[in-house]
Amino acid sequence: MGDQYEVSEAGAGALTIPSLRWEELPEGPVVVLLDQTRLPAEEVERVCTDVPALVEAIRTLAVRGAPLLGIAGAYGVALAAARGFDVEEAVEALAQARPTAVNLGYGVRRAAAAYRAAAAGGADAQAAAALAEARAVHAEDIEASARMAEHGLALLGELLPGGGHRILTHCNAGALVSGGEGTALAVALAAHRAGELRRLWVDETRPLLQGARLTAYEAARTGMAYTVLPDGAAGSLFAGGEVDAVLIGADRIAADGSVANKIGSYPLAVLARYHHVPFVVVAPTSTVDLETEEGSDIEVEQRPGQEVTEFSLPYAQGPGGEAGTGIQVAPLGAQAYNPAFDVTPAELVTAIVTEAGVVSPVTRNGLAGVCSTSRWSKSRSGNGMMAE
Amino acid sequence: MGDQYEVSEAGAGALTIPSLRWEELPEGPVVVLLDQTRLPAEEVERVCTDVPALVEAIRTLAVRGAPLLGIAGAYGVALAAARGFDVEEAVEALAQARPTAVNLGYGVRRAAAAYRAAAAGGADAQAAAALAEARAVHAEDIEASARMAEHGLALLGELLPGGGHRILTHCNAGALVSGGEGTALAVALAAHRAGELRRLWVDETRPLLQGARLTAYEAARTGMAYTVLPDGAAGSLFAGGEVDAVLIGADRIAADGSVANKIGSYPLAVLARYHHVPFVVVAPTSTVDLETEEGSDIEVEQRPGQEVTEFSLPYAQGPGGEAGTGIQVAPLGAQAYNPAFDVTPAELVTAIVTEAGVVSPVTRNGLAGVCSTSRWSKSRSGNGMMAE
Repeated sequence: MGDQYEVSEAGAGALTIPSLRWEELPEGPVVVLLDQTRLPAEEVERVCTDVPALVEAIRTLAVRGAPLLGIAGAYGVALAAARGFDVEEAVEALAQARPTAVNLGYGVRRAAAAYRAAAAGGADAQAAAALAEARAVHAEDIEASARMAEHGLALLGELLPGGGHRILTHCNAGALVSGGEGTALAVALAAHRAGELRRLWVDETRPLLQGARLTAYEAARTGMAYTVLPDGAAGSLFAGGEVDAVLIGADRIAADGSVANKIGSYPLAVLARYHHVPFVVVAPTSTVDLETEEGSDIEVEQRPGQEVTEFSLPYAQGPGGEAGTGIQVAPLGAQAYNPAFDVTPAELVTAIVTEAGVVSPVTRNGLAGVCSTSRWSKSRSGNGMMAE
Repeated sequence: MGDQYEVSEAGAGALTIPSLRWEELPEGPVVVLLDQTRLPAEEVERVCTDVPALVEAIRTLAVRGAPLLGIAGAYGVALAAARGFDVEEAVEALAQARPTAVNLGYGVRRAAAAYRAAAAGGADAQAAAALAEARAVHAEDIEASARMAEHGLALLGELLPGGGHRILTHCNAGALVSGGEGTALAVALAAHRAGELRRLWVDETRPLLQGARLTAYEAARTGMAYTVLPDGAAGSLFAGGEVDAVLIGADRIAADGSVANKIGSYPLAVLARYHHVPFVVVAPTSTVDLETEEGSDIEVEQRPGQEVTEFSLPYAQGPGGEAGTGIQVAPLGAQAYNPAFDVTPAELVTAIVTEAGVVSPVTRNGLAGVCSTSRWSKSRSGNGMMAE
């Protein structure tokens, strides 16, 4: 298993958080991860010197988030190749680390294909090819974040010409899920840098508290003015006229523009509509699944009820977040309704911001159009769906 | 301080929970409370043999909820009188136990007035008068619960003629806040007894989790089919057509019919409107504050941010729920928005069910009319506002 050491402030003062990086040490290459299960209490880097260490980090959610898992998977293949391990075995182990994470498989497949294609050149050429492909996956994601931030900032300028935006977000859609600065949070960060962010309202995002833990951490790191709130308190903010726009990410977008995202997103869309506030989804075109016709076709994962009936933090849990490891809140035997996502229909979405441009109004044709112009359309072999 | 002993199932099998009772023991009278801070993990009764024990129980939230505090305060005065303690000192101590709880002061004042009015008859007559008044306060509350349940059940029958109701509730508005069976939950319980409750959806109710802890406890005790959910998951239930009506209580109702209730109620009202689902408020007329003209005049208490940025359970806290006693969730120094209540405007409220009748549509005149017919209007000297 990989070594692990603590750093008091990983990249303090930097505007981006190195959630994952490839490093060439004298003793060989390593993949270095910011351990997200320890956030925000501690900033601990996890150094993976072999594939089992990386698989363990993926399993325990030390590294999480759709795009970032794709990058981690690709570097994992490169790590196996560079260190002379069995690459096919590594491919299998990585892809199985979280079977529902489609992006993980995508990253692994891309690096593996590059590795295999270079077979004629020998082991060194193969390792170089795998690493080059992992770096390409990484670079494409950084580029996509930057483009989404740019398009999103321009859109905010059109929707809210006065500046001084007060933006509400839900879950975590920032640098921690991405090789770059993320999706929705990348747009908020761009507004912050442009001096146009007055306040970032951060839904705590029950049951797993990604907002209170991770988005708040990113907001604090980047110096945004932010405030955490219980999910149910968002209504008061809308009623008080204190929300200028909602910005969220997406886990999957159907061909009709319906958006599956973290549970609690849909109520925000309804509140935004009732209060005439723009509701903007920021997601790469890799998230658009043109083979899913409508929102009602999206299958919503039901998560363990213990996430609701017990309280626990990820670092207090076993690898799978097993039941019975938290503090009992509800009566023993209480049944819970705990869907991972909800689906917001296109008519409640003001705009979808992608790396290839903005779709607004959100129509089937508009969405297909922006997807056809994206780099992703050339390598599309699945969809961007993954579990948190 | 009072003795304390454990019971494995306080009143097991009963359909009502003895949240508070007066008992005449051989060694003297006592006030017996179900300790709500230990729920749902343990059912522990707290036996108060003197006023300091009762004050301590009020301070530590062992007994809570607007009507129940009024009853507790009245019995506290009766306890002091019966045991020969200084009654005026007891009145002062009880009223100050939670200064913002208006109902507490109301109950204390009623028993104290009866005690003083009987001065000519001597100490025994005074004690008897105080106890009789406390019993009257208690009986009126039981009666009010029963009337609300009756009116509410009839209303559900009109609104949802098919039966098989799936009802969503928020916070705790049941037997634990009342001498009787409560407000919104009393209606749900009446539907359950009538064989017309298919499912009680219980919002967990962040940040203090009164839904997951207390409403779930009451639902389990009374045999209702119930399911706990994160507050943000209610939207999916509405979207899936799985909510037939919302039933909530109220902390204060303004003269225009605006309803202040636990934070997270207003988003449910907006979701209910969007999905054409009835949104019904159940509250005694003592909750209506005709001197507060409009919803915007209701001052909303801001609670400590630590309730959001840390996790703790009441029994893990000191008497005031001090900061720093929980598990840190958000980054240290994170700011939180944590209003105790939100305000739902009358136009989103389908009906207000009181002990004196149903107001629907909710208008200023309709509300004033139902209040003028209630017993409360004769003894009105304050309003029903209190902090959870």
